[in-house]
Amino acid sequence: MRILGVDPGLTRCGLGVIDASGGRKVSLVHVSAATSPSTSNTPARIARLADALDAVLDEHQPEAIALERVFAQSNVSTVMGTAQISGVVMLAAARRGLPLALYTPSEVKAAVTGDGRAAKAQVGYMVSKVLGLTEVPKPADAADALAIAIAHAWRGGAAPLGNTASTAAQRRWAEAEKAARKRG
Amino acid sequence: MRILGVDPGLTRCGLGVIDASGGRKVSLVHVSAATSPSTSNTPARIARLADALDAVLDEHQPEAIALERVFAQSNVSTVMGTAQISGVVMLAAARRGLPLALYTPSEVKAAVTGDGRAAKAQVGYMVSKVLGLTEVPKPADAADALAIAIAHAWRGGAAPLGNTASTAAQRRWAEAEKAARKRG
Repeated sequence: MRILGVDPGLTRCGLGVIDASGGRKVSLVHVSAATSPSTSNTPARIARLADALDAVLDEHQPEAIALERVFAQSNVSTVMGTAQISGVVMLAAARRGLPLALYTPSEVKAAVTGDGRAAKAQVGYMVSKVLGLTEVPKPADAADALAIAIAHAWRGGAAPLGNTASTAAQRRWAEAEKAARKRG
Repeated sequence: MRILGVDPGLTRCGLGVIDASGGRKVSLVHVSAATSPSTSNTPARIARLADALDAVLDEHQPEAIALERVFAQSNVSTVMGTAQISGVVMLAAARRGLPLALYTPSEVKAAVTGDGRAAKAQVGYMVSKVLGLTEVPKPADAADALAIAIAHAWRGGAAPLGNTASTAAQRRWAEAEKAARKRG
């Protein structure tokens, strides 16, 4: 399954496309960070990011979109722009008939690193390892978009983890996910 | 000038179109409140409201959009949906090349009633008087959308008020607007 992960933001919007096959295998299809200049007015910035989103959707034809969930409680100065972009991503998903899933930052961290409170650098490191990349995608928004797509691939499908997890690592992972959901 | 006022919301989105001619003359072109069922998922709800917005834009061809400004500090449970819809309205404005202006609720109240803290009923009453309607448009979101359009017509153009305001009523109005801007 081809998945587009989106790390929404008005200044930088991470866009990462992966292919997920059976088990936990994932591979990189595309990664970028769309940007908009803070000197433009907000409608022009939103349109610019929407154009970049449409271009990725047209070129790579993902079958699902995974989007970071925005909270009103987070950084007040950026949350409104982030919510506005999220609305645009949701509209694009609905108009193209693509299923859209939302993940909190801690759910993504838990899925990719096993720790819902992992540092950004650790998420980037795991993304590069899992996708077999020689370096961490930059900027962080690009790596985060891939992490969101990976979280969707792993949580949504092939190898769900839960109470049946058997190894110690899998149990820690399941617990981190559970804790992340509680915090979310 | 034809103006579309939008009172954004995920459950109900007010859409009001007016024609503004010279001086303070305004007339009703269209008013409605687009709704989306809370049982649907958010992308489907956003798409439904976006379709209603596009229909009004296509049919009435406004030359400008006035949108209520959303604050992260307001009601947390509804602010994210409101911000998402705002993003969609801004995208529509940018893609159609329409100028978009933002007004705080108190700016709108000040422009339409002369009091930045006027009650909802007072705003509805003034909207009906100013547009020569026999009754107040319902629901409140519809009346609010018209109030936002009227605020844009009056503030943006024909009869700007400021220190040169001469009558007592105009001075009170100017002061209310100034206070509203400070609070905004």
